[in-house]
Amino acid sequence: MTLHATFLGTSGAVPTVNRNPSSLFVRREGDAFLFDAGEGTQRQMLKYGTGFGVSDVFVTHVHGDHVLGLPGLVQTMDFNDREERLTIHTSKGTADRIEQLVFAVGGDVGFDVRVSEVSPGEVVLDREEYEVRAFPVAHRTSAVGYVLDEHDRKGRFDREKAEELGVPVGPKFGRLHEGEPVELEDGTVVEPEQVVGEPRPGRKFVYTGDTRPTKATVEAAEGADVLVHDSTFANDAGERAEHTGHSTAGEAGSIARQAGVTRLVLTHVSSRYAGDAGVLKDHATREFTGRVLVAADGMELDVPYPDR
Amino acid sequence: MTLHATFLGTSGAVPTVNRNPSSLFVRREGDAFLFDAGEGTQRQMLKYGTGFGVSDVFVTHVHGDHVLGLPGLVQTMDFNDREERLTIHTSKGTADRIEQLVFAVGGDVGFDVRVSEVSPGEVVLDREEYEVRAFPVAHRTSAVGYVLDEHDRKGRFDREKAEELGVPVGPKFGRLHEGEPVELEDGTVVEPEQVVGEPRPGRKFVYTGDTRPTKATVEAAEGADVLVHDSTFANDAGERAEHTGHSTAGEAGSIARQAGVTRLVLTHVSSRYAGDAGVLKDHATREFTGRVLVAADGMELDVPYPDR
Repeated sequence: MTLHATFLGTSGAVPTVNRNPSSLFVRREGDAFLFDAGEGTQRQMLKYGTGFGVSDVFVTHVHGDHVLGLPGLVQTMDFNDREERLTIHTSKGTADRIEQLVFAVGGDVGFDVRVSEVSPGEVVLDREEYEVRAFPVAHRTSAVGYVLDEHDRKGRFDREKAEELGVPVGPKFGRLHEGEPVELEDGTVVEPEQVVGEPRPGRKFVYTGDTRPTKATVEAAEGADVLVHDSTFANDAGERAEHTGHSTAGEAGSIARQAGVTRLVLTHVSSRYAGDAGVLKDHATREFTGRVLVAADGMELDVPYPDR
Repeated sequence: MTLHATFLGTSGAVPTVNRNPSSLFVRREGDAFLFDAGEGTQRQMLKYGTGFGVSDVFVTHVHGDHVLGLPGLVQTMDFNDREERLTIHTSKGTADRIEQLVFAVGGDVGFDVRVSEVSPGEVVLDREEYEVRAFPVAHRTSAVGYVLDEHDRKGRFDREKAEELGVPVGPKFGRLHEGEPVELEDGTVVEPEQVVGEPRPGRKFVYTGDTRPTKATVEAAEGADVLVHDSTFANDAGERAEHTGHSTAGEAGSIARQAGVTRLVLTHVSSRYAGDAGVLKDHATREFTGRVLVAADGMELDVPYPDR
C-alpha cells in the first residue's frame, strides 16, 4: 500500500522565491489528502502533478499561510466540474472563518464543501486500514496536529509450513490468513497461529503544523515512521520561536528523539534561511541521530513499511 | 519618466504550471500599482523582483482569479512592518466582499487598508502628471477597466532659437519653458510660443480586465500606447467567449484596430492554450496590424513616449 507525501509548500509565514506557504499532499493508496493549504497550493499541485482528487483537507490552524489557498482550490475544483464532497477539517472555533474565506468571493459552488471542526484526540477520519487523529499542539491560536496511523496488518503467512501441515493449496490458505481454523480431510484442525506470524505494525505519519515543542507531540509521534515538525528557526532564535509559538530545529530534533521516530522532516522554514537552510539540519542532528530532512517544495517522500 | 509593466499573472480562471492568475504590476516613475491580484501574486512579486512598495491595487472585478491574492499580500506587507496606507479600488458594490476576503483570516492589520469603490468614468487617482480612470466593461458581474493616462508634457524648448533671439542663458530659459513671456535688457519681449513647441502627448496604458469587446473600451483606449485586453479564447470559441463574458483574440484585435492603439497585449489566456498560445497572436494579427504580444508571466514591457 502506497504511503507517499509531496511537500507543496514549506515556507514560514512569508513565502520566498523557492518556498510556497504551507501545504502537504499525502497519498495513501487510493486516498489523497492535503494537510494545510496556503496561498498558491493549487498551482503547486499542478506543478508537482498530484492531481486534484483530494477528499479531505486537514487544517492545523487558521493563519493565512496555512489556509489562503482554500478558496482558489475550491474554485478550480468547481471549474473542473467536481461532484464529490470536499471536507475541510479545522481546529475548534475556526469553522466560521474558514467558511467566510472559502465563500467570500463565490458562494455558489457546484459540489458539497463541508467544514468540520476537530478536537484534539478525535479520530477525524476512520478508514478500514488506518485512521487520522488530531492531537493538541501549542501555537498562538486554536491549533491541532494530525497523525495518520495505520492499523496493524495481518502477520506473514508461512506457506511452507502450511504445506508441511498438509493444508491443500487453495482457499484454506486464505481462511487461515484471515484468522480462521481449518479442518483437513483427515480431520486434523490447523489453527491460524500455526501458520500466521505476529501482526505487523502499520505506518505512522505525523504532521504538527505550527507549534512549540510539546509533550503531546512526543506522545502522538511515538515510534512514528515520519514526523514532519515545525522548524521555523535555528537554535539562536530560540526566544523568537517561543514568542511566535514556533520551534527551533534543535527543539524539533529533541521531540523526534523523545518520540523515537524514524525520520524527522523539518518544515515551515523562515525566510531568513532562504539562502541556506543547512543550519536547521545541523541543529536538529545534534539532538536526533535518526534521519533528518529539511523539506523543500516538490520534495517527495515515500514511507515504506518498517518491516521491509 | 519610467512607465513599465510586469505581467505577474496571465492565466484565465484556472492557473496552469506556467501561468498564475491575473495580476499586472505597473511602475510609473516613483509610483507602483497592481492591477488585479490573483492567488499567488505576492510570490510572483518576489519572483520577478517588483518589490512590495505598491500604494494602490486596482481591482477590475471580484472573481477569485483576480482577487484571491489580496489577503496574503496584505499579510506579508504587515509582516514587513508596512506603515503606508494601501488603497484597494474595486468595482461598485463589491467593497464588502473585498473586506470579507482580506480580513477573513486576520483582522488586525498594523497599517491602513482602505477599500474604495469606483464607478465607470471616475478619476480614481489624480496625480500631477497623470491620472487613473475607470471605464465600463461588460463581464458577468460589476466590473471596470482602468486607463493610466498621462497629461500632455510641455513642448520642446528650442534653445538655439532662444539664444538667437538674445535670451541670455539662465533662469529666463526656464520661465519661457514654463509658459511665461520674458523681457530682455533692451526691452524686447519674447513670448513662449516663439521658443517652445506644441505640448507633447503623454502616454496611455489601458487594462480591460475580463470583458466582452465593447465600444466603451474603444473609446477608453483611443490612441493608447498599450492596450492589455482580455483574450481568453481563440476565434473558434467565440460562443464560449460570449457565454462567459470574455473576448476572443480576434475580438481583442478588432478593438485595438478601432481604438488605433500602438501595442496590443493579449492576456487572461485559457488553460486550453497551455501548450501553445500562438494561435491567439495569429487571430489578433488578422484584425490588427500593430504590434501584438501574448502576455506571459514575468514579461516586462517598457512604454516609451510616442515622440521618442
